[in-house]
Amino acid sequence: MRAYNWSPDGRRLFFITLDSASDERQILIDEKVSEQRGLRRRLGQATASLYLRAPDGKVTLIARRPRSDRSTIASKGDVIWTGEEVQYPVMEVDREGIERRVTMAWSFVEGRARAIASTRDYVYWQMKGPRGGQLASDGLGDTREIVEIGEDGRRHSYGRFPFSIGHGAAFGGLWAPDGNQTVVNIRALDDPRFGIGVIDRRGVRPIWGDGSLTKCDFNPTLAIAACLAEGQTLPPSLVTVDIASGRVRTVASVSPEHDKIAPLQVTPRSWTNRYGHKVTGYVVWPRDYVKGQRYPAIVVNHGNDADQRFALQDNQWEYPVQTLAERGYVVLLINEASSRLNADLRAAEQAWGLQGTTLPPERMRELLWLTGAASFEDAVFELADEGIIDRERVGIAGYSRGSQLVNVAMTQSHVFRAASSGDGGFLEPAMAADMPDYYVAIFAGLPYDPKALPNYLALSPSLRASKACGAILQQIAAPHVASIDFYRALRKAGVPAQISLFPGEGAASDETHVFHIPSNRMAAMEENIAWFDYWLLGKRDRESPFAERYARWDAMAAALPNRCR
Amino acid sequence: MRAYNWSPDGRRLFFITLDSASDERQILIDEKVSEQRGLRRRLGQATASLYLRAPDGKVTLIARRPRSDRSTIASKGDVIWTGEEVQYPVMEVDREGIERRVTMAWSFVEGRARAIASTRDYVYWQMKGPRGGQLASDGLGDTREIVEIGEDGRRHSYGRFPFSIGHGAAFGGLWAPDGNQTVVNIRALDDPRFGIGVIDRRGVRPIWGDGSLTKCDFNPTLAIAACLAEGQTLPPSLVTVDIASGRVRTVASVSPEHDKIAPLQVTPRSWTNRYGHKVTGYVVWPRDYVKGQRYPAIVVNHGNDADQRFALQDNQWEYPVQTLAERGYVVLLINEASSRLNADLRAAEQAWGLQGTTLPPERMRELLWLTGAASFEDAVFELADEGIIDRERVGIAGYSRGSQLVNVAMTQSHVFRAASSGDGGFLEPAMAADMPDYYVAIFAGLPYDPKALPNYLALSPSLRASKACGAILQQIAAPHVASIDFYRALRKAGVPAQISLFPGEGAASDETHVFHIPSNRMAAMEENIAWFDYWLLGKRDRESPFAERYARWDAMAAALPNRCR
Repeated sequence: MRAYNWSPDGRRLFFITLDSASDERQILIDEKVSEQRGLRRRLGQATASLYLRAPDGKVTLIARRPRSDRSTIASKGDVIWTGEEVQYPVMEVDREGIERRVTMAWSFVEGRARAIASTRDYVYWQMKGPRGGQLASDGLGDTREIVEIGEDGRRHSYGRFPFSIGHGAAFGGLWAPDGNQTVVNIRALDDPRFGIGVIDRRGVRPIWGDGSLTKCDFNPTLAIAACLAEGQTLPPSLVTVDIASGRVRTVASVSPEHDKIAPLQVTPRSWTNRYGHKVTGYVVWPRDYVKGQRYPAIVVNHGNDADQRFALQDNQWEYPVQTLAERGYVVLLINEASSRLNADLRAAEQAWGLQGTTLPPERMRELLWLTGAASFEDAVFELADEGIIDRERVGIAGYSRGSQLVNVAMTQSHVFRAASSGDGGFLEPAMAADMPDYYVAIFAGLPYDPKALPNYLALSPSLRASKACGAILQQIAAPHVASIDFYRALRKAGVPAQISLFPGEGAASDETHVFHIPSNRMAAMEENIAWFDYWLLGKRDRESPFAERYARWDAMAAALPNRCR
Repeated sequence: MRAYNWSPDGRRLFFITLDSASDERQILIDEKVSEQRGLRRRLGQATASLYLRAPDGKVTLIARRPRSDRSTIASKGDVIWTGEEVQYPVMEVDREGIERRVTMAWSFVEGRARAIASTRDYVYWQMKGPRGGQLASDGLGDTREIVEIGEDGRRHSYGRFPFSIGHGAAFGGLWAPDGNQTVVNIRALDDPRFGIGVIDRRGVRPIWGDGSLTKCDFNPTLAIAACLAEGQTLPPSLVTVDIASGRVRTVASVSPEHDKIAPLQVTPRSWTNRYGHKVTGYVVWPRDYVKGQRYPAIVVNHGNDADQRFALQDNQWEYPVQTLAERGYVVLLINEASSRLNADLRAAEQAWGLQGTTLPPERMRELLWLTGAASFEDAVFELADEGIIDRERVGIAGYSRGSQLVNVAMTQSHVFRAASSGDGGFLEPAMAADMPDYYVAIFAGLPYDPKALPNYLALSPSLRASKACGAILQQIAAPHVASIDFYRALRKAGVPAQISLFPGEGAASDETHVFHIPSNRMAAMEENIAWFDYWLLGKRDRESPFAERYARWDAMAAALPNRCR
């Protein structure tokens, strides 16, 4: 069972199962061979089956989808129920590998599906509004508004609001059976937290709790919701939300153990960087912070995932933010500048996603990576100027998208003395052939094109290893060529570096991008603590499970190139 | 059991077993991660154990070798027996991955091993001469001589001979128990065939049979040998060789079925190419060849393996030379110019093997690849000038080293209208990071080095795809990144191309570089026939198992770029 979704009236059930398909032994040619480039294992052969259970209990197979339909294979069960049909998204991939999101509708009466929308553009999952059209949040920053686009293309604005809608973190959106009210997931833009937006013909009314309201479910009339309430310092608890009054009532703690811990102090904060881009985030303070004393600091980043949720793995991965603060680090959780606030950023993001006109490579570089790295550096400078942190003892960590910014930050300046980069390698030329369109959008060509090569030399971390000085740890879930190239280039340039590969459950599988094996998670966190303690503080802990690494690290520290001393 | 070798007196047995080592689940760091770059599967964990059985039947483990010791893991059991010890080669790999061949000696009396020689240079397996020194064939071409180098470094020449010694195809070398005579494997340079060289204090005496004498074994006194006799048109038969008289006597046919077939006509021939390099080879004639009629032709190449052996897979891989000739092609089996004949070629070969001074990249290109491709082209021109073949219907095939020359030939000129390139990809920039020293030796840098990039653009087949016009089939044993890059580049340039991946025995294994699965061998040969028939002759065979490919090929032929028409 991959995912399921009950109809609002509780009478129908949509569900998806994954089917293992056996790997037939045969000669493969052309595309079937080409698609295996750079893959360590052949792509999973699973297909997905979509079923609908009718009120009479009869189950109908409504579609079988190939593995190329990543949208279905990884579905969370988001569908739209209308009175007559269930609408579900699938992904079609053409021969050039271009993915297209198609919305299908299965008619209960006709017993068949038809495509009702198809777009290559990435769109937030659409929600039906009280006027029968599609709801969306539109516009940039202060001009942001909630709109509903009717089937006739007519646009109705519900007004300007400092939040966005359509995030998956809490729930998609639900439409009341009487059609008069829609509830949607909303996210505040400044101190990013999740709430419930109630939209009816009169307008939009937000409901906020303490911290965020996440993972909400509703009773069929949409009168009452059950959610988790959680925040940076608020362990998750189960709450009910009365939609009419907006009253939030705590039902039970999810983990009473966590409630016993006196929370750390966490302060929302925003910064504006040298490019004029504003970013949000949090300062996580050491428990016994003494004003006037300078602390070592670590920046943790992952896209826009720094928000009011509790110790979110999506955000902090295997960087044990709370433990680091307990050990005396000021931890900065910093988001990237949001493309919801800035037209330039949005244009660059769209160009990268092949949905817009490409910008010149130097501009792509600036808007998609250099400004991110600059945000972190400028936040560090600001807190150093305020006497809070010690500029000489600052580290940086991030995985996935965050690893790109870590690798760029470390090879563009010397602000960070140590880094932990998690399971990333995008921007390395070795990956260009595996996703040529995305690389061409950024670098204006492939790396063996003499006209494009200078753009790679200006950004690809492994080609800039000789600019780096800080110690760089890479923790990876599979032996990615790009991560290995960066490691080798760093070592060749004399930069202290380590690459750690965490094992899968057996010889035939890998750890996942977001680690899921508890022993790996524990080890990765301990390794990060040992790494930062050693390289930022010069501290050794003979009790650390990684104590036997100190000799290696000593040797790298002793051999630091002169340019870095 | 990997390999074994009896002592000449038949009293001792040396043997090697392979041990499977289980793959421990653990976090790997640094070199253990880095070595997995570009590997689809983790390196085999097998270790090898070397044993010696004494005259009393007692078996002693004399060494256990790691998998990095490729020499032992792939041993054919070549050792040297002296009265007191058995000498065996192992390979040591240092942290930089540099391999060093070490000769070990296990003393029967002391019951332990010591290293007696160590060299990074590639040396032919050493044979002990009648004077107690090491035998070798030395010098170039006409100045080639058989020499013995004593332990004191003194050099004794046995004179000049038009053959080389030390090939593994027949046997290594054996030293008579009385020390007065050594028998070695010899290979003639002109019409390359194997024989036995008998060396005593008086000199060297060659023994030749019909075709080649291969896979010889000797009685303990070295008075009689049992060998296979085989040649291009001579199916293997078992023969005895009287060493004193040189008389060769047939004992039995290995495959009486083959003896029933009237052999094709195969003519040894040599050519001198535009660079002045001489190459040897064979013309395999269509069975009913008619003088004055022009025939389509296919060049098959693989290093120096075109010699007097029967349908040798090392040479003709999955190119069914005999069947192609039966179908009306003139097949040319052509060797590369031998570095045993030319000092320039030897210098380039040594530079590539990291054993000599590097030459300028344009010189490396010329001596290691362009001259090879030119040999094939010039041979084609010569036979076309003689009215034998039709210049417009010429194909080329080669695997491994041969695939390099096929890919270079196809992207440097338009002589060949169709090609089949087997399981190769060296020279592609994608492989450079996996063997940087060898690439730097050739290209004077890695591909992202702007100074080196022009050298890649001048030679790497995928970067020259837009110069190609002939149809290129790649048959591969695993989805190599380099082969896939070449395929994609060809298709992008509109060049007709196909890549075919042949499966391993199961999902957890690949086909081997020299195919070993009979169904794959059969299919690959049929595919080559279909490919050449289609692209050279425009012939379709509805009975071919690949007949369903014609539609694809038609589409590619129809879309041939204008520059190729």
